[in-house]
Amino acid sequence: MCELLGMSANTPTDLCFSFTGLTRRGGATGPHKDGWGVAFYEGKGVQAFHESAASASSEIAQVVQSHPIKSETAICHIRQANVGQVCLANTHPFTRELWGRYWVFAHNGQINGFSHHEGTYQPVGDTDSEAIFCDVLNTIREQLTDNTDQHTLTALLVTLAQGYAERGVFNCLLSNGDWLFTFCSTKMASITRRAPFGPAQLMDADVTIDFEAETTPNDVVSVIATEPLTTDEAWDVYQRGEWRLWRQGEVLIRGDVELPER
Amino acid sequence: MCELLGMSANTPTDLCFSFTGLTRRGGATGPHKDGWGVAFYEGKGVQAFHESAASASSEIAQVVQSHPIKSETAICHIRQANVGQVCLANTHPFTRELWGRYWVFAHNGQINGFSHHEGTYQPVGDTDSEAIFCDVLNTIREQLTDNTDQHTLTALLVTLAQGYAERGVFNCLLSNGDWLFTFCSTKMASITRRAPFGPAQLMDADVTIDFEAETTPNDVVSVIATEPLTTDEAWDVYQRGEWRLWRQGEVLIRGDVELPER
Repeated sequence: MCELLGMSANTPTDLCFSFTGLTRRGGATGPHKDGWGVAFYEGKGVQAFHESAASASSEIAQVVQSHPIKSETAICHIRQANVGQVCLANTHPFTRELWGRYWVFAHNGQINGFSHHEGTYQPVGDTDSEAIFCDVLNTIREQLTDNTDQHTLTALLVTLAQGYAERGVFNCLLSNGDWLFTFCSTKMASITRRAPFGPAQLMDADVTIDFEAETTPNDVVSVIATEPLTTDEAWDVYQRGEWRLWRQGEVLIRGDVELPER
Repeated sequence: MCELLGMSANTPTDLCFSFTGLTRRGGATGPHKDGWGVAFYEGKGVQAFHESAASASSEIAQVVQSHPIKSETAICHIRQANVGQVCLANTHPFTRELWGRYWVFAHNGQINGFSHHEGTYQPVGDTDSEAIFCDVLNTIREQLTDNTDQHTLTALLVTLAQGYAERGVFNCLLSNGDWLFTFCSTKMASITRRAPFGPAQLMDADVTIDFEAETTPNDVVSVIATEPLTTDEAWDVYQRGEWRLWRQGEVLIRGDVELPER
């Protein structure tokens, strides 16, 4: 399995604190040592880092921890391989261009024997996750257009996510740089930080931050992760089948779907 | 304008030495300070780094210089903006997936008023370079299939390149991870290093390397760049209109096309 971390903010914000906590789980406080990756949107551009090695001991991950990359939307993943060998092509998050935007996807879970809807997008590696991502994009390209409204697009994403979650474990983060779609099949939690800001303590490293010193009063920054990252904040835990579409740090639309008992 | 650097090798090889030379030109020994990027193939996967800031003073570029990322094919670019603002979305190399492989492209030059052949691939940023890349992929997808032989594909690439070079300056590097296509409109040079290996001195930094100590006798490593990077090696300079298709460090196919005098 693996762990996911996403961020949605109303102002370019760095992910150093949360990324530090998450990457400790990649071989130090957690077993997710089979690769890591992160994608930061800067406008419509994406700055991505991927490695098929443990994040906890990675020199490149250390630079990302200490070098503040400012982004409004970011998606991060640490991998413990189940389907697909340990290699760069199988390292999340995955990126494809659709309608002149980069779409970025990361998945936690497993769907056995998944085969994707044929179409424009084909997997490069051999994970179920990348095949699911291609399936999502092929379906969107087939059924919608660039001018489709947000509610119709979101409804399609929810229908697809429900279908995947009925066949296996499907927690996901998906973004096109404008919004961040999050779906909980088994685990997901979020925290929204806004004024008055306070301190926070990482669960996985002896690191404390005072967000008051790092922010302005208008900042709204939400962090979404498969497992809470701090010990002293009240994370809002998603229910099974719950989804939230984030934009600029706020939930724009939310809902839930029924999933069979596990 | 900008500068290009590519590598084709028959064994996974790091690009630290050449990358160190090139990135010095990004704001120190050269004016190409408007961004830099590099893509390393590892199997079918790609490890990419992009920044819309000067490479010569970049902390991330420093890590790439000192951290040996082993690759058989790599493409690197440093940018001095002409068309398109300075931002991440306009930073080469560009990547798209076609037929289950990542295709990577970097361009030196300018084609005024270029508009791409409509199709699946759309530019995310606003450079002529990315529009040309989309044009290449849209044409390939329209005219060929995944099973097209190498000679037919190369012939189409040459025809497209010739057409672009007739309309402006078009030096390019393009790869799908299996081969590296290089086209010279105004400047390109290559060096192939094989046993017996010797030392080399960078033009842009006081750095010398002894390749003998870094290689095995069977290694063949070719470096292709818009300007030679070392002072004490005989670079093989491309003629205007000349193209070479590299694979595992060797020229697989080569030729030239006629271009109008400039």
